[in-house]
Amino acid sequence: VVDEAHLRARCRAFKEAFGEGAVLYAGKALLLKAICRIVAEEGLGLDVVSGGELYTALAAGFPPERLYFHGNNKSEEELAEALAAGVGRIVVDNFHELALLGQLAPRAKGARVPVLLRLAPGIEAHTHDYIKTGQLDSKFGFSLAGGQAEEAVALAAASNAVELVGLHCHIGSQIFKTAPYAEAAAVMMDFAARIWQQTGTVIRELDLGGGFGIYYAPGDEPLSPREYAAVMREVVAAKAEASGLVPPRLLVEPGRAIAGPAGTTLYTVGAIKEIPGVRKYVAVDGGMADNIRPALYQARYEALLANKADRPAVEKVSITGKCCESGDMLIWDISLPKAEPGDILAVSCTGAYCYPMASNYNRLPRPAVVLVYEGEAALIGRRETYADLVRLEVVPPRLQRRLAG
Amino acid sequence: VVDEAHLRARCRAFKEAFGEGAVLYAGKALLLKAICRIVAEEGLGLDVVSGGELYTALAAGFPPERLYFHGNNKSEEELAEALAAGVGRIVVDNFHELALLGQLAPRAKGARVPVLLRLAPGIEAHTHDYIKTGQLDSKFGFSLAGGQAEEAVALAAASNAVELVGLHCHIGSQIFKTAPYAEAAAVMMDFAARIWQQTGTVIRELDLGGGFGIYYAPGDEPLSPREYAAVMREVVAAKAEASGLVPPRLLVEPGRAIAGPAGTTLYTVGAIKEIPGVRKYVAVDGGMADNIRPALYQARYEALLANKADRPAVEKVSITGKCCESGDMLIWDISLPKAEPGDILAVSCTGAYCYPMASNYNRLPRPAVVLVYEGEAALIGRRETYADLVRLEVVPPRLQRRLAG
Repeated sequence: VVDEAHLRARCRAFKEAFGEGAVLYAGKALLLKAICRIVAEEGLGLDVVSGGELYTALAAGFPPERLYFHGNNKSEEELAEALAAGVGRIVVDNFHELALLGQLAPRAKGARVPVLLRLAPGIEAHTHDYIKTGQLDSKFGFSLAGGQAEEAVALAAASNAVELVGLHCHIGSQIFKTAPYAEAAAVMMDFAARIWQQTGTVIRELDLGGGFGIYYAPGDEPLSPREYAAVMREVVAAKAEASGLVPPRLLVEPGRAIAGPAGTTLYTVGAIKEIPGVRKYVAVDGGMADNIRPALYQARYEALLANKADRPAVEKVSITGKCCESGDMLIWDISLPKAEPGDILAVSCTGAYCYPMASNYNRLPRPAVVLVYEGEAALIGRRETYADLVRLEVVPPRLQRRLAG
Repeated sequence: VVDEAHLRARCRAFKEAFGEGAVLYAGKALLLKAICRIVAEEGLGLDVVSGGELYTALAAGFPPERLYFHGNNKSEEELAEALAAGVGRIVVDNFHELALLGQLAPRAKGARVPVLLRLAPGIEAHTHDYIKTGQLDSKFGFSLAGGQAEEAVALAAASNAVELVGLHCHIGSQIFKTAPYAEAAAVMMDFAARIWQQTGTVIRELDLGGGFGIYYAPGDEPLSPREYAAVMREVVAAKAEASGLVPPRLLVEPGRAIAGPAGTTLYTVGAIKEIPGVRKYVAVDGGMADNIRPALYQARYEALLANKADRPAVEKVSITGKCCESGDMLIWDISLPKAEPGDILAVSCTGAYCYPMASNYNRLPRPAVVLVYEGEAALIGRRETYADLVRLEVVPPRLQRRLAG
């Protein structure tokens, strides 16, 4: 269930903090056509990371000039699709991509392709290893250390195919401090100053990515968009002044921080198993197939029994999914009112990285996605049926013969 | 790519080791209609864990009497579907399910529903926590400790709805030793003897589950089906003789051990990024969206460049996927011939728990599944298209209004 008012409020909070045109929603957190429409209405740009995300945005009628195309391994086909669509920027990750653009862009109509270069700033953000992206040993971007970033700038600046508009970096996810952003801004501005002094190349846009932490469970203390904006702006302004640069336009890419808090997953309680003295398991009709985050990132969530929300918590239970796997645990040790089969368990802050990562593991159909707004509910993603599960399948004729016995 | 000859050979090896009717393929490892047909032709039974798996098996024409229906949280609808289909056995996990069957079964035509009871034998197999299932603190089954198992037997034996045929346990996955199976067999047989002595209830089937380890990478030393079979049979026979029981029919449920080695994933190499002195990243056109196992279980794989298979390995690289996430690493530190964009990377032993766990993360379409047999290739799972990605979506009318500016 996506709370549209909350989603819009998050879009606006970021827009107010960072300014018109400065906020790109990172679609990988939650991308459906209806979400694209809302984000477009709120005046945000959109960061897409694949041909599939690009297709979704275009199918939703998202203005292509507000699309930023990301990815560490864009295929030639995807780049061609992005050029044909006329996306606002391509965020170039590596030399291979620069070469592909060199081959493709002259074939595309119009002027040179506006690009940002993604850099690996060599910053270690303190977060889960899987979602830490700014360090030197990263699959993403041109390394600042070792001169690859300079080389990429020189290639882009000399290219007939691309127009170097700016730089991009992303330091990780679920970051609750401003200091890593200040450090990233400083490193990127120092680099911008160096290339301006050495080559005269002007950096007009500085995209500092996303990663703003959200509240999932006690211990998470999110900052406001304004706090991040103030620190980034201050560093960029100070560095620009010190080096005599015109401050570049600052961009950010919140995804989780927009979609995450706006989503809630509703499960129905089924079997309850008590192992005396050990644990009480409350099983729900979903699990790691619709939310892989607890198993994949040891993510924590809060939940309540929606139909008993006014009753006091009386027992500590653990919430398990219905997949045939011990790892399919949604929440360990949560206090709830006494749970019974048929109760509705509402797990909060599931708007990001749940539905987009959903699988059909154990052949579980993916759930419906419902948008609620001003007292009305609208389906924006249909629930899968059993027939959907086999829709891609073919049985070769020789395997269709009658079974013996 | 699924090698049908290999898949069939694995089915036969288990059937030869355990005997006719003793082997149930665990469908959750890889379940497509074509795979169901092959398994059925080989004379195996099938273990399904959800309404979706049941639907797939029935859609493939799998004989329902050879189906075993598993799951820790079967819904009333799923149980009704299983009863309507006439599945061979329902493997009852908990008291809630026993109660549901009590309500449903009298409504279903025919005799009492043949069931196995799933027990938690309290055995710690040494494997990844997520796939360790036999211990006391488990979401699965009636605990032997504390008397729940006895209580379940008494309820089932007294029920007009179910017919207690046997017992089931499953101790975990990727197990490379026979000792845990010997221990499980002993614990289960001791329990069978106890309930026979105490209540006269006869256990006719003993299903010891699966979990037989397969080779993924150096260090994995799989045993043959015969080795597992010999140990299980010996323990069951000795325990039966000691207690005066007729030895129950032994069943096993290999899934990974049948499908895993028969599958290979083919990727195309794209961007290659070298960070001098640190690491060389080789990116492919898939990753955690089609194989979550390295990120989820720290699973290791072997691979080769299929188009350069005869060339010597000359460099150590790390294989990364195309998802916008640092955790999207397929293989760390593998020695390969010099990789170039366009090369085909073949990752072996991906037949189990890859395609069934695939997501559309980053809106990546799921890959095709191809069956190869005697020199011919047949499509058994169509590649998803971009249009497939949005097929479930609806845009509410009020979000379809023209965007300003």
